[in-house]
Amino acid sequence: MNKTDKKIEDILQLPESECIYALNELIEEYNFDCPEAIKELKEILKTYNYGNIGLAQINPILGNIQYNAQKIVKRIKYAENLGLDMVVFPELTLTGYPIDDIIDRHPVVVEENIKWIKEIAKITGKTRALVGFIEKVKSNTGRRYYNAAAVLGEGKIESIVRKTLLPNYSEFYDARYFEPSPIVGAQPPETLCNFQKPVDYPKLNIINGKKYGITICEDCWNNNEFFIPNLYHSDPVKTLADEFPDVIINCSASPTRTKKEQLKHNMLSYISRMHKTPFVYVNQVGAIDNNSFDGSSRVYNARGELLARAKSFEEQFLIVNPIKGLGKIYPLANGLEKTLQEPKIFTLDYEPDLERTYKTIIQGIRDYFAKTGFKRAVLGLSGGLDSSVSAVLVADALSPQNVFGVSMPSKITSNESKNDAQTLAANLGIHFAVAPIKAMYETVNNSLQELFTTIETKWDVRYKHSFTPDNIQARSRAMLLWGISNEFGQCLPIATSDKSELYMGYATVNGDMSGGFAPIADVTKTKLFALARWLNKNRETKNVIPESIILKRPGAELAIDPKTGKPLIAEDALMPYEFMDEVIWRIENKHESYKEMFETEFLYEREHNISLEQKTEWLDKFYRRMSTALYKWSILPPSVIVDARSINKNDYRQPITSSKINYKGQTTDEIEKIITEWM
Amino acid sequence: MNKTDKKIEDILQLPESECIYALNELIEEYNFDCPEAIKELKEILKTYNYGNIGLAQINPILGNIQYNAQKIVKRIKYAENLGLDMVVFPELTLTGYPIDDIIDRHPVVVEENIKWIKEIAKITGKTRALVGFIEKVKSNTGRRYYNAAAVLGEGKIESIVRKTLLPNYSEFYDARYFEPSPIVGAQPPETLCNFQKPVDYPKLNIINGKKYGITICEDCWNNNEFFIPNLYHSDPVKTLADEFPDVIINCSASPTRTKKEQLKHNMLSYISRMHKTPFVYVNQVGAIDNNSFDGSSRVYNARGELLARAKSFEEQFLIVNPIKGLGKIYPLANGLEKTLQEPKIFTLDYEPDLERTYKTIIQGIRDYFAKTGFKRAVLGLSGGLDSSVSAVLVADALSPQNVFGVSMPSKITSNESKNDAQTLAANLGIHFAVAPIKAMYETVNNSLQELFTTIETKWDVRYKHSFTPDNIQARSRAMLLWGISNEFGQCLPIATSDKSELYMGYATVNGDMSGGFAPIADVTKTKLFALARWLNKNRETKNVIPESIILKRPGAELAIDPKTGKPLIAEDALMPYEFMDEVIWRIENKHESYKEMFETEFLYEREHNISLEQKTEWLDKFYRRMSTALYKWSILPPSVIVDARSINKNDYRQPITSSKINYKGQTTDEIEKIITEWM
Repeated sequence: MNKTDKKIEDILQLPESECIYALNELIEEYNFDCPEAIKELKEILKTYNYGNIGLAQINPILGNIQYNAQKIVKRIKYAENLGLDMVVFPELTLTGYPIDDIIDRHPVVVEENIKWIKEIAKITGKTRALVGFIEKVKSNTGRRYYNAAAVLGEGKIESIVRKTLLPNYSEFYDARYFEPSPIVGAQPPETLCNFQKPVDYPKLNIINGKKYGITICEDCWNNNEFFIPNLYHSDPVKTLADEFPDVIINCSASPTRTKKEQLKHNMLSYISRMHKTPFVYVNQVGAIDNNSFDGSSRVYNARGELLARAKSFEEQFLIVNPIKGLGKIYPLANGLEKTLQEPKIFTLDYEPDLERTYKTIIQGIRDYFAKTGFKRAVLGLSGGLDSSVSAVLVADALSPQNVFGVSMPSKITSNESKNDAQTLAANLGIHFAVAPIKAMYETVNNSLQELFTTIETKWDVRYKHSFTPDNIQARSRAMLLWGISNEFGQCLPIATSDKSELYMGYATVNGDMSGGFAPIADVTKTKLFALARWLNKNRETKNVIPESIILKRPGAELAIDPKTGKPLIAEDALMPYEFMDEVIWRIENKHESYKEMFETEFLYEREHNISLEQKTEWLDKFYRRMSTALYKWSILPPSVIVDARSINKNDYRQPITSSKINYKGQTTDEIEKIITEWM
Repeated sequence: MNKTDKKIEDILQLPESECIYALNELIEEYNFDCPEAIKELKEILKTYNYGNIGLAQINPILGNIQYNAQKIVKRIKYAENLGLDMVVFPELTLTGYPIDDIIDRHPVVVEENIKWIKEIAKITGKTRALVGFIEKVKSNTGRRYYNAAAVLGEGKIESIVRKTLLPNYSEFYDARYFEPSPIVGAQPPETLCNFQKPVDYPKLNIINGKKYGITICEDCWNNNEFFIPNLYHSDPVKTLADEFPDVIINCSASPTRTKKEQLKHNMLSYISRMHKTPFVYVNQVGAIDNNSFDGSSRVYNARGELLARAKSFEEQFLIVNPIKGLGKIYPLANGLEKTLQEPKIFTLDYEPDLERTYKTIIQGIRDYFAKTGFKRAVLGLSGGLDSSVSAVLVADALSPQNVFGVSMPSKITSNESKNDAQTLAANLGIHFAVAPIKAMYETVNNSLQELFTTIETKWDVRYKHSFTPDNIQARSRAMLLWGISNEFGQCLPIATSDKSELYMGYATVNGDMSGGFAPIADVTKTKLFALARWLNKNRETKNVIPESIILKRPGAELAIDPKTGKPLIAEDALMPYEFMDEVIWRIENKHESYKEMFETEFLYEREHNISLEQKTEWLDKFYRRMSTALYKWSILPPSVIVDARSINKNDYRQPITSSKINYKGQTTDEIEKIITEWM
């Protein structure tokens, strides 16, 4: 009796439901190649004579159809071997989501995915496979593509469902190339690439005697009782529910963001309860550039109760039976369930979101590197919070032996900082090198001073106090990191700017904000402190980040504060991080104006007595700096979106030349007066 | 009799129509403050007792409502003084277009623009003013904003028109926040910010007894005879034409691109002829980041003939009477009219597009600097084509005394290159400095070599031949340029990468592709050669670019070619530019696939005998390099779009992790075989 057989035998002692999931996990461990376990599992599943569904949450590579197809075929085969009624894949599984403008510039990708869907259909048997793909249509009107999903079975395409509601905000750009489907639910296979006018056809798919209503992603996000106001004019789920399906299915690709799990859970629970119909939701997992998809596919029963949920941030094939109540709930990222009903207010209690934040970023780094063909990372270790947290995240994502931390002290760098950097590297087990930048700084500075002497004979606009010396330091460091990246295989430099500093433009172009990837560009400073403490407490190796790094007040150690004679502290140059981060939070989550902020109390104000002049000064500085930071946002390296809103250029678009917006606004009287003066 | 009176007297001797335009030009010269001329002009215009319209093409600053409002008020006053029936402004005049995500994140901007539209209405009299603005709506369904235009007159808002067709491709993102108007034509003023259900109301606006049908931008781009297929399901112009208006009006903000003038002219001419109705088209002018709007507002008569056209790339107030046939046709950029009926094929005859290209870029640079508060530019002068053409463009946009050219020779730089750079600067009249990078190169290289020794003890993946030395040179130069920018007021460094090289990723991160603005990022190399010759021939000062720069084969002078012992020539490392630029053109204009390119003859093939192996090698290299250039495109500095398609990240969106796309495609048989192997 070999090891596998022994494991199977042990598993078979468990109660039936536990047994199903243990066998399934074992089979996934063996990459679906474990006939003995499959045989046993099939036997058990037979007792459910209908309604067994596989939720195949996979991590695709965008546009790499063959890679994605292999994952799909493997799971279809597994589902068939188990005798499931259906296997459901995420939205646009064949190409990955979001496909973006590739669809328009390289229509060959669409043609290829149609060949593949037809060929995959041929290998299907009794088990139906619901596979997302891009459909091209010959039509005299409208956009030329549908975001579609095909029901495959018995060797052919049985029917096609097309997405009706097209999200077109934040990270979503669906309406750029997709045409909204004029009909909800199934259409016959003859309409493939030829869907001009909807045909009268049963909306629901009947599979093994049960009726399924199929929707795609946004199609389930417009319930007009749950959402007020509604973004769209129709509710595809309601249209299908009116046909009395046994189960409603949704193929999704929905990236994780702060508070989104709470919204999603409440909404899906509401919908299934309202329609008294089980709801199966299958989500993409893995990161595609800035979007980190969390998987966590799930099933709600007809009472709106969570029946099953797949793992977060991992591929999984989860077997459920929404009709007969079979399911298993794998844990969410810690902390999320606690906050399902939490109000939307600014708080420094980041704890409930930290594990999700960590996993979102780790997956973002890992997939960006893997999918672009990189393996190694190099980053500067300053002994400060940003680079320290970045180092931990990168080490966890790529493994420590693939990370080099480089301490690049200047004359301003304290011994404490150097030691902290070295300690961190040692704690973390990453490689470490020291490269002082004194010689570079001096050479660059000499060249520049000579140039400046020439230039000021022509231009009478030399600053009395410039940031040139600060920037030379930051850029010298980036020069070394990029040099390493150029010299060693599959190695990218890491940009360590955080979100608070990016809002303030407090980052050097071609310096600390430059790199192949920016892991913490969507984490504010106050949250970063919390994350550092969380990492110290929750990683297997405790306390890798020296306490002195966390206790130190952040500053770039690029310049000496003339007032103190010590390195400049960022909060002294800007404003308290607690205040700054609340401004960011209010803009991003409440769309508040300057005036609204001025008129309502900040958390910081409750704990510190600040004058209105002080508040005005900070707010003015914030808006002024934010306006001029737009250029920096536009050249920000790829970075993973973590928060409910971000400055990622794929998520938020603001022309740089709009830097003269009057965010403070004017009263009607003021406007009237201004116009009168013009007359 | 003062100078103005003398000018007016001279003008009054001209034939009536000439007289109108000469007076109007004089008044614009005086910034609308020339009562004597206004009085005379008003007198002449009285003979047209209805139908006089002012086309007010203005250059707004995005989001700077007060700045824009001042321009609007001034022109409303002028139109009123002249007794015109109407003055028409471009789309979203109050805020500027495109407003992008500002609309969502900072709703205060929308609130402000509504206060302003109400106040501006109060100063109107008999003359109607058509002013574009953003309307916020309280509604339980749909997006919360309309792209609207208000007809102002007699001190109030008379009616409101809302955009129905929302462009959402390339540089357009209208559908992200705007709701398409469910109704075409006018709605009553009570619907302001309260447009939930359309009211039964006359679609046309009656002004001084004549009927006007008003549309906004994309609303006129869906004629289903001119365009096959059609992008949208309705044609607002047709809906209005069915009501028999005397004139159809369109408020636009439509950026210039290669071949767009031809399309626009043919389409507008077609529409006016088809509906037998004069068509008035008013376009925004000026650049907003990457979008350069060309103005060229115009009128077609009921036979589809061009009756009037305003200047290109300049603000203008053009007086027309579409009903009575009053108009003046100002010249387009040279060359465009020649090509109105030209087929869409790849050609090296760039001549007809060069003046437009020049003006598009000049305006792009000038407005980016002016609108962000910069005045000066610094750029490296290598003696090569890219930096030379960039220098001319920047000097022309900002004036020579605001430009510093810096020659930064390394040991590879030839004396010829140094001399060429100096000659160019002298010819152009820009400031010039020399800053050898030898010392920087050596210091950086020393620091790096030391680091590399440490790193290779841990990482066994050091390249035998790396690009590190090349990149150190490019980055040292950028370090100096950014240093100057940090040290001197309102000064930005210029990135000199061209489009062909960016496609190939043949540009250094934090090196030549880094800068505050990239003027030639959308100009391919073969076009750049043509542009250099055009500049030498057509600028007031002839031959500023030394012939030796144009004759030299391009190369970065960063490395020595071991085969020749001379600096590496880019075409030897890549492929002939003529071939490369045709690949780019076919992808961007024909959406061709690898296979289609392989199977059809290139212009280059007609003139050179190349083997299929050679063609395969070049195509393979092109696709491989293009895939890995995506990261560089994502951090490309702001740059002006020139061509029909571009890599500008606001225009073309492709996730970097999609670099594994199989652009070559597979046959059905191959796919079947692959799947069989998986089974």
